[in-house]
Amino acid sequence: MSDKHILVTNDDGIYAPGIKALWEAMSELGHVTVVAPNREQSAVGHAITLSDPLRVDEINRSNGFKGFSVDGTPSDCVKIATQALLEVEPNVIVSGINLGSNTGTNIIYSGTVSAATEGTMLKIPSVAVSLNSFESRDFTGAKKAAKTVVSHVLEKGLPEKTLLNVNVPAIPENEIKGYKITQQGNVAFRDRFEKRVDPKGRVYYWMTGQMFDPDEEPNMDHNAIMDNFVSISPIHYRLTNHDFIDELSGWDLS
Amino acid sequence: MSDKHILVTNDDGIYAPGIKALWEAMSELGHVTVVAPNREQSAVGHAITLSDPLRVDEINRSNGFKGFSVDGTPSDCVKIATQALLEVEPNVIVSGINLGSNTGTNIIYSGTVSAATEGTMLKIPSVAVSLNSFESRDFTGAKKAAKTVVSHVLEKGLPEKTLLNVNVPAIPENEIKGYKITQQGNVAFRDRFEKRVDPKGRVYYWMTGQMFDPDEEPNMDHNAIMDNFVSISPIHYRLTNHDFIDELSGWDLS
Repeated sequence: MSDKHILVTNDDGIYAPGIKALWEAMSELGHVTVVAPNREQSAVGHAITLSDPLRVDEINRSNGFKGFSVDGTPSDCVKIATQALLEVEPNVIVSGINLGSNTGTNIIYSGTVSAATEGTMLKIPSVAVSLNSFESRDFTGAKKAAKTVVSHVLEKGLPEKTLLNVNVPAIPENEIKGYKITQQGNVAFRDRFEKRVDPKGRVYYWMTGQMFDPDEEPNMDHNAIMDNFVSISPIHYRLTNHDFIDELSGWDLS
Repeated sequence: MSDKHILVTNDDGIYAPGIKALWEAMSELGHVTVVAPNREQSAVGHAITLSDPLRVDEINRSNGFKGFSVDGTPSDCVKIATQALLEVEPNVIVSGINLGSNTGTNIIYSGTVSAATEGTMLKIPSVAVSLNSFESRDFTGAKKAAKTVVSHVLEKGLPEKTLLNVNVPAIPENEIKGYKITQQGNVAFRDRFEKRVDPKGRVYYWMTGQMFDPDEEPNMDHNAIMDNFVSISPIHYRLTNHDFIDELSGWDLS
């Protein structure tokens, strides 16, 4: 085993099967510490906990899995792990393995990706790993992909402000065609609200809807996993639209 | 009054002073509907509510302010407003006026900006407005800036996937030097966790810390408001780091 230190987190919570799979895969690459939310935190985006204190509990399971559970968001976990819990700064932060892909515009809502973004902001190379299924318990392909990508990141590093967003098709490992470097595509969730009335006569709404994918290009993240490739997108958070600066500067705002 | 429809939201909650100020300013530009969280939702990032239903209440205040309060996040408010509550699609969505600036890497955590991002994803031109003070109740300068910027957006529109992030210095209106088109800078919050022990002997942590600003360039968002200008940054959510695609494609991942 190398002397690398790896921080593992997620947004499905420390008891989710995906984080156990990721812990197993990462344990082959270095010393792993798990710091993860104590309950599911999906679709929390890049939330942080400002107005409440954070509680931390140590977890020790009979299978050897141990770590810290935090009553906060994925971003909270990365912050408190690196600033308060870990004695050594991790060489890499890996978030996942999420149940459900994080592609296209949906990555804006993703707690899995936000944990990696938080790591990146702390200048630690970070990787988010998601499996394109809400039900699968077969993490074989995703574990292999995580191990492959993270071992390269440990060796080569990542550019400033850039994380890798890895999505793995939920198919038997030997059917995965390989790795494709992709862009964030335009796949999105089209919302619909279902209006209902509760037994006391009060109205409430359920958000529902479905994914739609307007992308044609095969090098888009969602299309790559549909084509049975592992998708790897380099994601940054330089959010300025430089293309619009000149036109905007022409607006007469005085 | 024009026939424009304006959706106003925020992350400080529907009872915050900033949203009332924004409602007043926008009422001079068109028909305003307020749909905002029923309580403070700061630092929620781009969270959405998937596992609980959303409740909506109508608010009617004696000063004429009315709208809908939602027990959800700023993104939830924009979604439910446009998909379920409004009869007409708004011409513009305006989020704010936030107490506290949203500049640099901090915009990642911002509920104010995320509401505008959500509007942008729904292809509706959107603007986020923040005042650089946590205490000020003088919204005069911010109201004028919001009115100026939004009236231009109503006239000219915005490019696809691009919102305007407006930050206003908390100084008397006549001391504001004008408008500066800026980039998202690197100002950030440097976290520190304060470890405490509760009366029952359990450990808990408070997140604290302070802002730091490594930017030198005057055309960065935070520096512009420090220089007494209204900062306007065009923000998009095309998150692919294209500069790294070639190098990443050279990694031997087989």
